[in-house]
Amino acid sequence: MTAVLLDSLAAIVGAANILSGDDVTSRNVDFFSDETCQGLAIVRPANTEEVAKVMALCHQHQQKVVTIAGQTGMVKGGRAAADELFVSLERMNRIVELDPQSRTLTVEAGVTMQAVQEAAEAAGFFYPVDLGARGSATIGGNIATNAGGNRVIRFGMTRDQVLGLEVVLADGTVMSNLGKLLKNNTGYDLKQLFVGSEGTLGIVTKAVLRLRPAVKQSHVAMLAVSEFASLPGILQRVDEELEGGLCAFEVMWQEFFDCIAEAYPDKTLPLPPGSAFYVLVEQLSGDDGERLQQVLMALYEDGLIEDIALAQSDRQRQAIWEIRDDVETISEQLGGVGIGYDVSLPIAEMDDYINTLKANLAEADSASRCVAFGHMGDSNLHLAIAYKDNSESDKLEIDHLVYGPLKNIQGSVSAEHGIGLTKKAYLPLCRSDAEIGLMRGIKQVFDPLNIMNPGKIF
Amino acid sequence: MTAVLLDSLAAIVGAANILSGDDVTSRNVDFFSDETCQGLAIVRPANTEEVAKVMALCHQHQQKVVTIAGQTGMVKGGRAAADELFVSLERMNRIVELDPQSRTLTVEAGVTMQAVQEAAEAAGFFYPVDLGARGSATIGGNIATNAGGNRVIRFGMTRDQVLGLEVVLADGTVMSNLGKLLKNNTGYDLKQLFVGSEGTLGIVTKAVLRLRPAVKQSHVAMLAVSEFASLPGILQRVDEELEGGLCAFEVMWQEFFDCIAEAYPDKTLPLPPGSAFYVLVEQLSGDDGERLQQVLMALYEDGLIEDIALAQSDRQRQAIWEIRDDVETISEQLGGVGIGYDVSLPIAEMDDYINTLKANLAEADSASRCVAFGHMGDSNLHLAIAYKDNSESDKLEIDHLVYGPLKNIQGSVSAEHGIGLTKKAYLPLCRSDAEIGLMRGIKQVFDPLNIMNPGKIF
Repeated sequence: MTAVLLDSLAAIVGAANILSGDDVTSRNVDFFSDETCQGLAIVRPANTEEVAKVMALCHQHQQKVVTIAGQTGMVKGGRAAADELFVSLERMNRIVELDPQSRTLTVEAGVTMQAVQEAAEAAGFFYPVDLGARGSATIGGNIATNAGGNRVIRFGMTRDQVLGLEVVLADGTVMSNLGKLLKNNTGYDLKQLFVGSEGTLGIVTKAVLRLRPAVKQSHVAMLAVSEFASLPGILQRVDEELEGGLCAFEVMWQEFFDCIAEAYPDKTLPLPPGSAFYVLVEQLSGDDGERLQQVLMALYEDGLIEDIALAQSDRQRQAIWEIRDDVETISEQLGGVGIGYDVSLPIAEMDDYINTLKANLAEADSASRCVAFGHMGDSNLHLAIAYKDNSESDKLEIDHLVYGPLKNIQGSVSAEHGIGLTKKAYLPLCRSDAEIGLMRGIKQVFDPLNIMNPGKIF
Repeated sequence: MTAVLLDSLAAIVGAANILSGDDVTSRNVDFFSDETCQGLAIVRPANTEEVAKVMALCHQHQQKVVTIAGQTGMVKGGRAAADELFVSLERMNRIVELDPQSRTLTVEAGVTMQAVQEAAEAAGFFYPVDLGARGSATIGGNIATNAGGNRVIRFGMTRDQVLGLEVVLADGTVMSNLGKLLKNNTGYDLKQLFVGSEGTLGIVTKAVLRLRPAVKQSHVAMLAVSEFASLPGILQRVDEELEGGLCAFEVMWQEFFDCIAEAYPDKTLPLPPGSAFYVLVEQLSGDDGERLQQVLMALYEDGLIEDIALAQSDRQRQAIWEIRDDVETISEQLGGVGIGYDVSLPIAEMDDYINTLKANLAEADSASRCVAFGHMGDSNLHLAIAYKDNSESDKLEIDHLVYGPLKNIQGSVSAEHGIGLTKKAYLPLCRSDAEIGLMRGIKQVFDPLNIMNPGKIF
């Protein structure tokens, strides 16, 4: 049966594009673990037509399919069982069209985020979504997970960049709506369902992305702040003064900065350690940085900011970003823990939430460490936690301490990484039975045989 | 049966909140027609609990329900048959909470757009969606239709302002997700389905809206442009120079300006008539208007702009906007036709599309007139058309000429007004069978008895 299916698949995509054995197991499920891929084979179609034929065949055989992209996910959304088939769009990596009048870029789903950014830039435009895995993560994966990153406060998540989609449905039907329209109120906005659906509703094969005007210059500052209560006011004032130019408002709790200082005792940091909070502020603008400097000085004079380091060069700008992005050092300083906690919660609740979490961790393990940081402007925090022996059962305890309190404060167990498998048990903390029931109903409509990434999300 | 149901409804909301007879028929289905409401009664619940009880009862009785809001729609989405029941949230018009830290406003769905704008402003914030019917249109209606308006290019449509929703489903289940989170990737984003669903999937009872920093000043200019081919470049250059400050890029074809000039021969217009295109540009910013002036001067020197009128006062600013907004005069000059055509199409196709449309109209009626204008920056055009006797059968001919060509250029028959009843026949021009099939499947999941605004959209 399987052999017959694989032969038929080979007839569609060519034998060279059915990978098996070591070619499968030599790949990791994701970037952050050593777990290797276990599926039946990796099928690599060359175009939408081949994807459609592959899915029609799988549908006929009730063959379960896991679509993989850059394999940079965080929640095991791309894990396959031994009898499940991987579909990879890695050969579908063409830029289809850049339309300067509509200011859109149409791409195949296997193109990387970085290739999209570069194609936009080469034509004098800007694709704003950005994250560390830009060289591997593909647009298809970004859409499947509604990737966010560092500039959401100004430009939104991947959802906000997608104007049109071409999708192959579970039965091989090609659903194409590659319009370049900012406005289109014609029935239910189906593309919104595919964005963030983690491969459970269909395979995105092409997308029309919205481009923005080219960005001229980046102005970056790091702030030291003594009280959490000052942060929302700083965010609001900076955002107001920069009039849409604020692109990042990244907060690091003291422990974050301490970890960096501990790891690099000889390094000159932009600000001295010891403050309760550090904030990275970035403005993208063609101005001379005067406005950012002025509003920060005003906040300093008002006593809301303790200290300011304003980057005066590309090197300094980069040095500030490197601190914020150095999650590897945070992980190492905490004994190799992952940075898998990615929650969102109302800003007004953040201080209490983190303090309570730390207290709860310390109660069971006085040597525990909890490093909080993230996109405060987007209500999104990441956490790195060292607790007891960091064993699997210890991690379950952390899960409960991290996720449990979110329910009552209308937070979310996943701000940007998605649910996949690792957060599935916690979905009911932020989605009601009614919501999950509707999700199941939608899944049934799109994929009645349950062959598209089965068992993920719910 | 009906009497029993009405008694039971009265027991839920109070007899005074069941309107019937003249209290129903004295209302118009929408602002732009004389069609009066024909439903069984108007039920006016006071809170979510009452809405839930009303829907549970209607579900039990398989009673069809049409939710009405500000009744300012354009596509008969709020028309009810004689045996259908209106539910109005006009008593649910409270501002629930303004959270300055999360920069959100939580409201009941019956609150007007204007009340939301005012509540935001009073707290030093800005709610960006705006349209002429702001005093009547409610947030519930805005969400049901994904209202757009004049500032979409910068701030997006209503969809982009909605962070959380509370919805009563067809069977009376309350689905509440009133989180204040910018980022929340936890399964399918169900709220996106309700936005733009025109009352067919549930009744939105509350919403969490995203607020923006207060806006300081408006700079407005009107431009005269001789060639369509110059417009995309002007848009791109202005948008780039204003760095996110561009809020409106409204294009009026020559006939629009001619109509205004004809109607007010004694009025001093900001620019002389006779140019092929007029553009209203608005920047919202705290700067002194220097940047807008500079980029416009540069475009003038490059020969892309024929003439510029830069508003120097609030009065002048208002005068320019009044021209763009004066669709009533356009309608009158064309003999009282409606302004119901609201299409979107790629900018690159607009010139050909309008020229072909005019030629086709003129072929059948040499005295026909076609006035095009709209939010070019959003790919959205409105059309006012005088053709033959403007009879119902003439309108069908216009429909075919306006909507027909959109299919091949991946345009949309409804940029912002929705589908309702009047555009239902044309939905297949911009949505495939596969898409409409999925919409029907979703409808079946949310409303298996088909009692929520039945027969609308598809």
